[in-house]
Amino acid sequence: MASPALDQPPYTLANLPYGVISTSSEPKPRCAVAIGKHALDLAKYAKAGKLFDIESGHNFMLAQLFSEPALNSFAALPWPTRRAVREKLQEDLKAGQVPADCLVELDGVTNHLPMKTSGFSDFYTSLEHCQNCSGEMTSSAIAKNWWYAPSVYNSRVSSVLPTPHDIPRPKNVYFSAGVDSQPEYGPTKKLDFELEMGYFVSQPVPYGESMPIGDAREHIFGFVMLNDWSARDHQLFEMRPLGPFHSKGFGTSISNWIVPMEALEPFSCPPNTKQDPAPFPHLTWPGQGDGALDIKLRIRLNRNGQEHVLGASNLKYLYWTPYQQLTHHAASGCSMETGDLIGTGTISGSGRNEQGEKCELGCLYEAERTKTQVMPQGASGEYQEGYIEDGDEIVMEGWCENGQGEVVLGFGECRGRILPPQ
Amino acid sequence: MASPALDQPPYTLANLPYGVISTSSEPKPRCAVAIGKHALDLAKYAKAGKLFDIESGHNFMLAQLFSEPALNSFAALPWPTRRAVREKLQEDLKAGQVPADCLVELDGVTNHLPMKTSGFSDFYTSLEHCQNCSGEMTSSAIAKNWWYAPSVYNSRVSSVLPTPHDIPRPKNVYFSAGVDSQPEYGPTKKLDFELEMGYFVSQPVPYGESMPIGDAREHIFGFVMLNDWSARDHQLFEMRPLGPFHSKGFGTSISNWIVPMEALEPFSCPPNTKQDPAPFPHLTWPGQGDGALDIKLRIRLNRNGQEHVLGASNLKYLYWTPYQQLTHHAASGCSMETGDLIGTGTISGSGRNEQGEKCELGCLYEAERTKTQVMPQGASGEYQEGYIEDGDEIVMEGWCENGQGEVVLGFGECRGRILPPQ
Repeated sequence: MASPALDQPPYTLANLPYGVISTSSEPKPRCAVAIGKHALDLAKYAKAGKLFDIESGHNFMLAQLFSEPALNSFAALPWPTRRAVREKLQEDLKAGQVPADCLVELDGVTNHLPMKTSGFSDFYTSLEHCQNCSGEMTSSAIAKNWWYAPSVYNSRVSSVLPTPHDIPRPKNVYFSAGVDSQPEYGPTKKLDFELEMGYFVSQPVPYGESMPIGDAREHIFGFVMLNDWSARDHQLFEMRPLGPFHSKGFGTSISNWIVPMEALEPFSCPPNTKQDPAPFPHLTWPGQGDGALDIKLRIRLNRNGQEHVLGASNLKYLYWTPYQQLTHHAASGCSMETGDLIGTGTISGSGRNEQGEKCELGCLYEAERTKTQVMPQGASGEYQEGYIEDGDEIVMEGWCENGQGEVVLGFGECRGRILPPQ
Repeated sequence: MASPALDQPPYTLANLPYGVISTSSEPKPRCAVAIGKHALDLAKYAKAGKLFDIESGHNFMLAQLFSEPALNSFAALPWPTRRAVREKLQEDLKAGQVPADCLVELDGVTNHLPMKTSGFSDFYTSLEHCQNCSGEMTSSAIAKNWWYAPSVYNSRVSSVLPTPHDIPRPKNVYFSAGVDSQPEYGPTKKLDFELEMGYFVSQPVPYGESMPIGDAREHIFGFVMLNDWSARDHQLFEMRPLGPFHSKGFGTSISNWIVPMEALEPFSCPPNTKQDPAPFPHLTWPGQGDGALDIKLRIRLNRNGQEHVLGASNLKYLYWTPYQQLTHHAASGCSMETGDLIGTGTISGSGRNEQGEKCELGCLYEAERTKTQVMPQGASGEYQEGYIEDGDEIVMEGWCENGQGEVVLGFGECRGRILPPQ
């Protein structure tokens, strides 16, 4: 299988993703953008007066915002201001007018979580994922509510992890041999990944207010790759009636660089699936020919030094789009805060990707339920159940291509490794 | 019905609860304790050198910690240090040695959320509540997992509200006439309260680590009253399979003053219910004769200027104690952070309180399910379904009594009012 996202640098001029970095010589975390093989220190860049034209038109200090250890203050600025910063960066980079001391090599950079997050919600909106998972964990059919509003639960903020980060195999109570068998306490035996993307909220939605769907783009700062690590035996134990908790709360890995909405707009596309029944008016996207995003996705496993591609998918396969998700999330007036992280939910595909490859399961639980061989140990030809072993590393990638199939931008890696239980 | 918590000041010397206040003359929020009818400004008190003996033994600045707009930094200190601060306060207050300019009248104080919270989890651990609610919302019987570990879900941090605060009636999608009927979009018609307590985490549990149950007390900073507002028709729509989200996320009211663990220790008692099956070893409380807390609770409704007592209960009625809850929460290594808020779940009783009053339903949904008249409109004698109307105000109170039935300390009010939809 070709590796377009790996063969080319993901951090192009059309990308300019935002992150938070530190270096050994300057250990204080601050904001940056990634460009090629470098990080551009935005605090230094602003202090050098490069953003003065933008600042003079507004009453704030970009140098101060970019010196903070999270992108929240910048993300909360009006979109036109953020656009202006991005355009100035592109202009200066194109003209070679970035002061040399603003650039540090990515190899020498430590990435931190890019935003301070106080809410992390995760959706469940891929039709294929839900179909593949139906059965013991949920019920035999997709629940009626699923078709009328994007299903979502609150997840755990404290265990959102940057790339790379190790995750100890979690211990908890679980049914020893299927639903309602004798419970035991111990490490999960069914440790899984979930292929997702995440997006961060830019401008807040105040408490008690809702958000028209046409405004959704403006409230999204940008996207990252997201691995919603899951313990399937722990999950089977705790699902009824309150939904997932510990089985999802022991770790969520994200990629480090937030690809901003401005960079993704050229990859707008129609959703892959026509919604039937038609969504309620407040969840109906006002535009035509767009409403979804064409972002190609891939999962890799590193086991004992060997790499295996486990799956591929595309963000546009989701039944409920990110804009519908965010609008539903804001509908009850719960308040959306700058830095809130929203998981799209597992993004499974409908059978084959554009290359004709049948590898579109978003997690290993789907493989177990559909008896599809995904993990490498099944080379015997017979289906063999497989979950993540201690020492395994899962890497998720995403990228966007132009009409000629050339990579225009990439998300970098979302990478995490499972350790033995502590 | 007697009103012991109202007839006496709740903020006694045995209480000294912590909060965050501002005043019109000094609008910057800072930390305080409540004593009688006053708030004692802890930032001023520390700046006056009153805590110098404690500081000299440690390497931090209490005046600075107490000047912050949240109690997190103080709560994260070792328990012996927090105890020493409390003892010095009690000593100075008893001896009349608090500088007059440190005291402001509670009447002139605005309360803010007392802690910066990044995780809010809510339990479901009252046996009577679960029995009363069984049916359409969950399943006909209590799920097997319930008996082996405390059931819990992540709730929404952004809509945790101080007292008093208005809550707009939320809009969302719901089944128009019972499970799987035609969905509609609109304001909830079944707006409910849930009588709970909340507790805040003091010292953190690092990512990947668990916490022995014997350490649970040390990781609890203190307790507040908590009203987990619920929209029952919205909840019925969204429960399967991911559990509650919007139906609980539109508002959670808490009382403003955190009664510290030190003040509550004298009210330790055995849990009300013997657990069968016996809990797993990691969830078994090591002490004897304690493990629960004897805190009396009451719900009042203010409607059209008239007050109605809707229910009474006691924290000790919970099947799973707060210490078991916190231990289970920390078991998967999800990390517990200072300021995390844990809801005990609805605290329903087993039929009658100590006064012989039958008024121990923790929410109105239980009243609907059990056809118990709780709301005032049923004076006709026939059972009449009743939920919260626009303009209704719900007040929750808690207090502890000594062996003679005298109130030793109270939690103050948890108060919120429902407004028409926005």
